[in-house]
Amino acid sequence: MPSELVFQLIEHPYFQRLRRIAQMGMTNLVYPGAIHTRFHHALGAMFLMQKAVQTLRSKRVKISAEEEEGLYIAILLHDIGHGPYSHAMEHTIVQNVSHEQISLLFMDHLNGIFNSRISLAIQIFKNEYSRQFFHQLVSGQLDMDRLDYLKRDSFYTGVTEGAVNSQRLIAMLNVKNDELVVEEKGVYSVENFLIARRLMYWQVYLHKTGVVAEQLLVRVLKRARELVQSGRELYGSECLLFFLKNKVSVDSFDQKVLETFAHLDDSDILCAMKQWSTMDDFVLKNLCRMLLNRDLLKIKISSHVVSPSKIQQKRKELCAKLGITPTEAAYFIFDGTMENQAYNMKKDPILILQKNGKLKDIAEMSDQFHSTALSTSVVKYYLCFPKNHEGLLGY
Amino acid sequence: MPSELVFQLIEHPYFQRLRRIAQMGMTNLVYPGAIHTRFHHALGAMFLMQKAVQTLRSKRVKISAEEEEGLYIAILLHDIGHGPYSHAMEHTIVQNVSHEQISLLFMDHLNGIFNSRISLAIQIFKNEYSRQFFHQLVSGQLDMDRLDYLKRDSFYTGVTEGAVNSQRLIAMLNVKNDELVVEEKGVYSVENFLIARRLMYWQVYLHKTGVVAEQLLVRVLKRARELVQSGRELYGSECLLFFLKNKVSVDSFDQKVLETFAHLDDSDILCAMKQWSTMDDFVLKNLCRMLLNRDLLKIKISSHVVSPSKIQQKRKELCAKLGITPTEAAYFIFDGTMENQAYNMKKDPILILQKNGKLKDIAEMSDQFHSTALSTSVVKYYLCFPKNHEGLLGY
Amino acid sequence: MPSELVFQLIEHPYFQRLRRIAQMGMTNLVYPGAIHTRFHHALGAMFLMQKAVQTLRSKRVKISAEEEEGLYIAILLHDIGHGPYSHAMEHTIVQNVSHEQISLLFMDHLNGIFNSRISLAIQIFKNEYSRQFFHQLVSGQLDMDRLDYLKRDSFYTGVTEGAVNSQRLIAMLNVKNDELVVEEKGVYSVENFLIARRLMYWQVYLHKTGVVAEQLLVRVLKRARELVQSGRELYGSECLLFFLKNKVSVDSFDQKVLETFAHLDDSDILCAMKQWSTMDDFVLKNLCRMLLNRDLLKIKISSHVVSPSKIQQKRKELCAKLGITPTEAAYFIFDGTMENQAYNMKKDPILILQKNGKLKDIAEMSDQFHSTALSTSVVKYYLCFPKNHEGLLGY
Amino acid sequence: MPSELVFQLIEHPYFQRLRRIAQMGMTNLVYPGAIHTRFHHALGAMFLMQKAVQTLRSKRVKISAEEEEGLYIAILLHDIGHGPYSHAMEHTIVQNVSHEQISLLFMDHLNGIFNSRISLAIQIFKNEYSRQFFHQLVSGQLDMDRLDYLKRDSFYTGVTEGAVNSQRLIAMLNVKNDELVVEEKGVYSVENFLIARRLMYWQVYLHKTGVVAEQLLVRVLKRARELVQSGRELYGSECLLFFLKNKVSVDSFDQKVLETFAHLDDSDILCAMKQWSTMDDFVLKNLCRMLLNRDLLKIKISSHVVSPSKIQQKRKELCAKLGITPTEAAYFIFDGTMENQAYNMKKDPILILQKNGKLKDIAEMSDQFHSTALSTSVVKYYLCFPKNHEGLLGY
Repeated sequence: MPSELVFQLIEHPYFQRLRRIAQMGMTNLVYPGAIHTRFHHALGAMFLMQKAVQTLRSKRVKISAEEEEGLYIAILLHDIGHGPYSHAMEHTIVQNVSHEQISLLFMDHLNGIFNSRISLAIQIFKNEYSRQFFHQLVSGQLDMDRLDYLKRDSFYTGVTEGAVNSQRLIAMLNVKNDELVVEEKGVYSVENFLIARRLMYWQVYLHKTGVVAEQLLVRVLKRARELVQSGRELYGSECLLFFLKNKVSVDSFDQKVLETFAHLDDSDILCAMKQWSTMDDFVLKNLCRMLLNRDLLKIKISSHVVSPSKIQQKRKELCAKLGITPTEAAYFIFDGTMENQAYNMKKDPILILQKNGKLKDIAEMSDQFHSTALSTSVVKYYLCFPKNHEGLLGY
Repeated sequence: MPSELVFQLIEHPYFQRLRRIAQMGMTNLVYPGAIHTRFHHALGAMFLMQKAVQTLRSKRVKISAEEEEGLYIAILLHDIGHGPYSHAMEHTIVQNVSHEQISLLFMDHLNGIFNSRISLAIQIFKNEYSRQFFHQLVSGQLDMDRLDYLKRDSFYTGVTEGAVNSQRLIAMLNVKNDELVVEEKGVYSVENFLIARRLMYWQVYLHKTGVVAEQLLVRVLKRARELVQSGRELYGSECLLFFLKNKVSVDSFDQKVLETFAHLDDSDILCAMKQWSTMDDFVLKNLCRMLLNRDLLKIKISSHVVSPSKIQQKRKELCAKLGITPTEAAYFIFDGTMENQAYNMKKDPILILQKNGKLKDIAEMSDQFHSTALSTSVVKYYLCFPKNHEGLLGY
Repeated sequence: MPSELVFQLIEHPYFQRLRRIAQMGMTNLVYPGAIHTRFHHALGAMFLMQKAVQTLRSKRVKISAEEEEGLYIAILLHDIGHGPYSHAMEHTIVQNVSHEQISLLFMDHLNGIFNSRISLAIQIFKNEYSRQFFHQLVSGQLDMDRLDYLKRDSFYTGVTEGAVNSQRLIAMLNVKNDELVVEEKGVYSVENFLIARRLMYWQVYLHKTGVVAEQLLVRVLKRARELVQSGRELYGSECLLFFLKNKVSVDSFDQKVLETFAHLDDSDILCAMKQWSTMDDFVLKNLCRMLLNRDLLKIKISSHVVSPSKIQQKRKELCAKLGITPTEAAYFIFDGTMENQAYNMKKDPILILQKNGKLKDIAEMSDQFHSTALSTSVVKYYLCFPKNHEGLLGY
Repeated sequence: MPSELVFQLIEHPYFQRLRRIAQMGMTNLVYPGAIHTRFHHALGAMFLMQKAVQTLRSKRVKISAEEEEGLYIAILLHDIGHGPYSHAMEHTIVQNVSHEQISLLFMDHLNGIFNSRISLAIQIFKNEYSRQFFHQLVSGQLDMDRLDYLKRDSFYTGVTEGAVNSQRLIAMLNVKNDELVVEEKGVYSVENFLIARRLMYWQVYLHKTGVVAEQLLVRVLKRARELVQSGRELYGSECLLFFLKNKVSVDSFDQKVLETFAHLDDSDILCAMKQWSTMDDFVLKNLCRMLLNRDLLKIKISSHVVSPSKIQQKRKELCAKLGITPTEAAYFIFDGTMENQAYNMKKDPILILQKNGKLKDIAEMSDQFHSTALSTSVVKYYLCFPKNHEGLLGY
C-alpha cells in the first residue's frame, strides 16, 4: 500500500461501493467472463501508476513524495463518479452530468473529510497542476486508465488479440519538455497498442449484441422515468427512484444528491428490472425480460443510414400484430450509429522521443505506419428489431 | 455445444439467473477477484464432463449418446437450486430445504417442459441409474463439480497453491467394476488434489474474514426475518419478502414457490441491505453497514471452545456502553465452530487401479501418504466481536 | 497420437535429431528464453493441424482418414530438412540446396522405409495433391507452420505483442472452391495476425543484435570453409568437416550425403566454435569468441545504403591499428540489407468468406485496413563494425 | 540490473557459458519442454533474491547496499561450477570434486579479476559471514536457489502440481534471532512447498525414464574413460579428452584445469556421443545410439533389492545371444537405488514465526501436518535391461 491516506481512501464507503459496479456493464451477456468491477480497475490503474513512477524516476525524472501520492490518488479516484451501467445511465438518469464531473464532486467531498490532503490529486485530475505530464499519466493517450482497462477487458473477455503490453509501454515512457513521451524503441509497442485498441472497439466495446443490450437498458430507464414522471408508482430502491423522479443538473448536485448517488449500484438496477418484468406495462416488462433472460432484439449492421421509411414500415407491422401504439413499437424497433475511437494525432498526439533527442508524432515515425488507417473514425449504422413477435408477451 | 437440448436448457431463464449469483458469496471481501458466478461454474463443470467422456471412451468404456447427454445435463443443472449467498440462506430463508432438493425441484419442472427428456439426467443425479459411476462423475470424490470449483476458486482468489490439475486427473480416470477409479500413475495427482483441497479449506473457504462476513450475512437475514415476522414493514423485493414472511418446507415448495425462488438473486440481498442500512433498527442497520462498507467484526480463532462466561462478559460490556439489550448485543458478539472437509476413506474412497488390475484405496497406496493427515477432520473455534464501539452507530 | 505411423515417424532418428536443433538459432543471445527446438515446433504444428481438421469437418468439409494422416505427416516433416542454424548454413554449407529440398529428400527416403505410406503426404507437401487447400494448410498465408511458429516464438521470446490467436484463426477457417478461406467474423483476427507478424519481423527476426549474431555465424562458417579448402587441418566432427570440404548440390545429395547431413546438429557448430576460438587464425578465432562470449560487433541501422567509401575508410583504420589485411578486416566491418516479409495480396491472398457467400481479399474487406501499410516491403541497411579494437585479440 | 559489477559478472565468459548447459540434463527425453539452462536459473534466482531483499527491508531487517550486492553475487554464482550433465559427470569426470567446490574455485578466480569485490559474496556462500540468514537465503530449506528451480522445472516440464508459490513464500519471510523464518500465516504455503517438492522428486527428478537416461550417460562417460585410459584414440574436443585422460582432484584443480573446465558444455558431450555412435566399440556405440535416438533400456521399479542372481541370469542370457563378455553385458543390465529428498527437521528445520513471537518447527505447527509423511526418506530399487536384443547392434 503506497501510503496510509491511500489506504483510508480505499476503505471509504464511496470507494468500496465500486465493488458493486461492473466495469463493462451488460457486456457479460456477450462475453460471460467480463464481470470484473470498477474496484478492480481502479486498483489496477494505481498499480500501473506505481510502475510508471518507478520507471520515470529511474530515468531521472524528479517526482517528489507528495507528487507521487497525488498521482496515486488521482488515478485511484478518477472513475469514482461512475454509477451503475454508466453509459446507459448517462443518457437517462444523470442526463447532463458526466461521470468525470461526478468524480470531481466526490473528490471535493473527500478532500473536505481528509483535511485538504487530496488537493494536489484534484489539481492533477483537472489538469491544473504546473507539470503537464502528471495529468497525461491520469488522462491522455497512454494514461494508466487506458493501459489498465484495455488489458483487463481483453483478459476478462478472452479477446486475447486486444491484449496491450502495458508493462513494456510503461517501461518505454519518459518525459521531455514536461510532456509524456515514448522512447523510440517502443514504437512497435505503440503501434500494437493502437491496433489492439481498435480491435477492442470493434470486437468488444461495439460488439453488436452488446450494443443491443445497452440500448435496451437505456430504454428500460427511459421508460421507467416516463412512467414515474407520469405519476405511476414504480417499485425501486429509494436512491433509484430519486433519480427517476428528479432531473439533476450539475448545479443541483449538492451533498444530499451526492450521498444518494453514492448509494446506487448495479443491484438497484437489476433488482428493479426483475420486479418490473412482472408488471403490467407492456414496454417496460418486455424490455426487462429481454435483458434478464438474455433474449435480446435482433440487430443488423450496415455502412449506410437506415431509411426512415423502412423503420416506419416495420413499426407499423408490429403495431398491427400486437395491437400496440407506434410509441410503444418505437421501443423495440429503432436505429442508431456506432463509431470507433480513432487516434487523433492533432488533438492528442503520441510523441516519440527519438534517439537524437527530438520529438516526432508516432504517425510520422515509421514508413509502415499509415496514420490514415488508425486515425480515421468509422461510423456504422444499426437497426434493432424483435426476432419474432412471440417473444413479446402481450398485454 | 454438445446438443440442442443442452443449448435450450442454458437459454432457459432458470439457468440464465445463475449469471446473477456469485459462486463464492461474500468471499470477494477477502479475495477481491473472487466474483465468478454459478453460471461460470456450471458451464465449466460441463466442459470437464466432456473431457471425462472423451477419456473414458478412449479407454473403451461404453457410453451411449443418450447417456452422454444425461451426464451433461446432470452436471449442468446440479447446482441450479442455489439461491443467492446460499450458505447463509440455508440457515435463514429456506431453513429445512437443501439446495440439492431445490435443484431436483427445478429439474423435475424442466423435465415437464422438455417432454421428459431430462429423465435420465435426473436418475443420474439421484443415483438411481443402473451404472454407478455415472453418479460418481456428478457427485463423488473426484466429480466434475469439485474438479471445476477447486480450480476455478483457486484461479479467481489467486491462491495458486490450491490449483488442482483437473486436466491430468481426468486423463487418469477409468472405470472398473462399474466404479470410477484412478489409474496408478495418477497417484501423485490424487495426493496433490487432496492436499490442495485441504489448503483451499483453510486458506479460502474457512478464511477468518470470510467466516465473519458469512456470519454477519446470516444474522442480517435472521434479523430481517424476525422484524418481518413481528409485523414490521421492511423494504425488499417481493420475492425476498415472500421468503422472509413464510416458512417454506420441502412439502410446501410448490410450483408457485419455485417460481418465486427463481426470481431471487444476489441483487435482492444487496439492494435490501443498502436500504436497511439506513433504517432505524440498531441491529439490522449496523450489520448491513458492516458488510457494505467492509468494516467487519474482529474474529479470534482458537483450538478450544470459547468459554460462555467470556462471551457473556463481553456482551455485558457492550450493553453497558451502548445501552442496548443482551439480545441485540448477541448479534455482534458470538462464537462458532469451523471444520475442514477431510478425506473419508470409509464413506467414499478414492480407488486406485493398480497395474496388476486390482483396486486399492489411495490411503493405502504409497508409503508416503499418511491417511491420518488428510482424513482427520479438524475443528476450530472462533469468537467474533466489534473492533471498537465507535464503529457501531447508536440509535 | 493420431496414428501408429505418425508415432513411428516421431520415433525415427531423423526426427529425434530435431531435438538438438534450436528453432531460432542464435536468437537466444537477444532473447534468452528463445531456446525452443524444431522438435517442439513440428509437434506443435501437427497439434494445430488436428484442430484444423476438427474445425473443417465440423463445417462439413469432407476429409478422409487417409487424407487426415497425410496432413499430419506433411506438417510433421515439413521442416525435417533443417540443419543447425539453418539460415546461416544455407549461405555457407549447403549453398545451393534449400531446406525444403532437403526435407523432400528425407521424406522420400522415409517413404522407402515405410512402404510408400508417406506418398500422400509428399503429394500434399509438393502441392501435387488434387485438393488445393491441403497444401495451403501446410504452406500458405495461414498454414499451421506459421500459426505455430509465430505464437511459439512470441511466447519464448516474451514479445507478447507478437502473439497470434492461432486457436481463433483456426476456428474461423473454412474451405470454398477448394481454397482455404477465413470466415467474415474472423477479419479482425486476420488483421491482428498480419500486424503481429510484421511486429515479430522488426522486433525479433530482424532484431539488430540477432542480425549481427547471424552474420557473424555466416562468416565463421565461411572462414572455416576457406581454411579447410586451402588445406588447413581444422578440428570438427566428421559430418561437419564433410560439408566444409565438399560442395554439395541437389544432384550430388545422395543417400550417403543425406545420412551425413542427418548427423549434423547445433552441437557440431558450438563444439567446433569453442575449439576454433583458441586456434591461431586471427579471423576465425575472433569471430568464434564474439559469439561464444556474446561480445558482438556494433551495428548501425539506416534507411540508406551505406557508402562504400565509408566502409573502406573504416577497414583501413582497422588494418592500420591491428596490422591485418583488408581481406581480414572485411570479416569485421561489413554492410548488408534486411527486409521484412510483407503481405502480398497478389501472390498469395488471404480470402475472406463473406456472409453472402462471396470471397474477397482481406485487403479490400475493411475500411480501416490499408493494404499499403502491410503489403509494402521495407528495406533497411546496416553496417557492422567492432566496438573497440581491444576486443579483437591480435596475432 | 542491480549493479555494474553484477552486470560485468553476467557478461563474463564463465557465466555466459551457462547458456550452453541445460538445467535438467537429459530430462527433456521425458519432458520435451525441459530445455531451460543454468543461465536462466541463475538469473531467476537472483531475481527472487531481489524480491527477498525488498521484503525483508520492508520488515525492518537492515541490509546494507554492500550486503545486498553480496547476496546477488552469491546466488548468481552459486551454480557456476556446474559442468554439462553435472549429475552424470560427477560420477565419471570430476569424481572427487563437487560442483560447489568448483563454484568456489570460479568465484575465487573472479575475485582476483574483480579486485576482491566478490569477497563478501564468497563469505556468504561459504557460510562464513557473521549474519547467518544471509547464507540461508543462498543455501537452506527455503533458499532462492530452490524457490527458483522448483518453480522453473515445474513450468518447463508442465508438471503443474509441482509449482511452488515462490512469490508468496518470499513475502512471508522474516528474520528472527539472525535466522531466516516464515511468518505464521505462511504455514500452508510451506506445507504446500514441501508437498510440491516431494511430488517433483517422484514425478520428475526420479522419473524412471529420466533415471535410465542418466544411468546410460554415466556409463557412456565411464566407458569412454576406460577406452581412453587403455590407450584408444577417441574423438572428442580437447577439453573433454583432458578430463577423460586425467584424474583431477581438488588439489590438482589449478588455474589451467579450471580454464579447461570452463570450456566444457553440453555440446562437447552431444557431439562426442554422435561420433562415438558410429565407432566399433560395441558398448560405447550402443549406449550412445540409445541416448541420441531415445531408444532407451527398459526399467522396472521395486520396493525390494533386486536379487543378484536374477541379474546374473539376465546377463548370461544376453552374453549367449550376442556373444559379448559379462563385462560388456553389465553395461546394459544393471540395478540401482533411488531415494527422494525428505524434509529433515533436525538437520535443517523450517522455523515458523508465531504471532506470539516464538519460533516453532513447521512439523510441530499444525495438527494436520504429519512430519513423518514428509520427513521419511523412501528408497526404491530399479533394474535396467534391454527391451529386446535386436535393439543392440552387434560387432
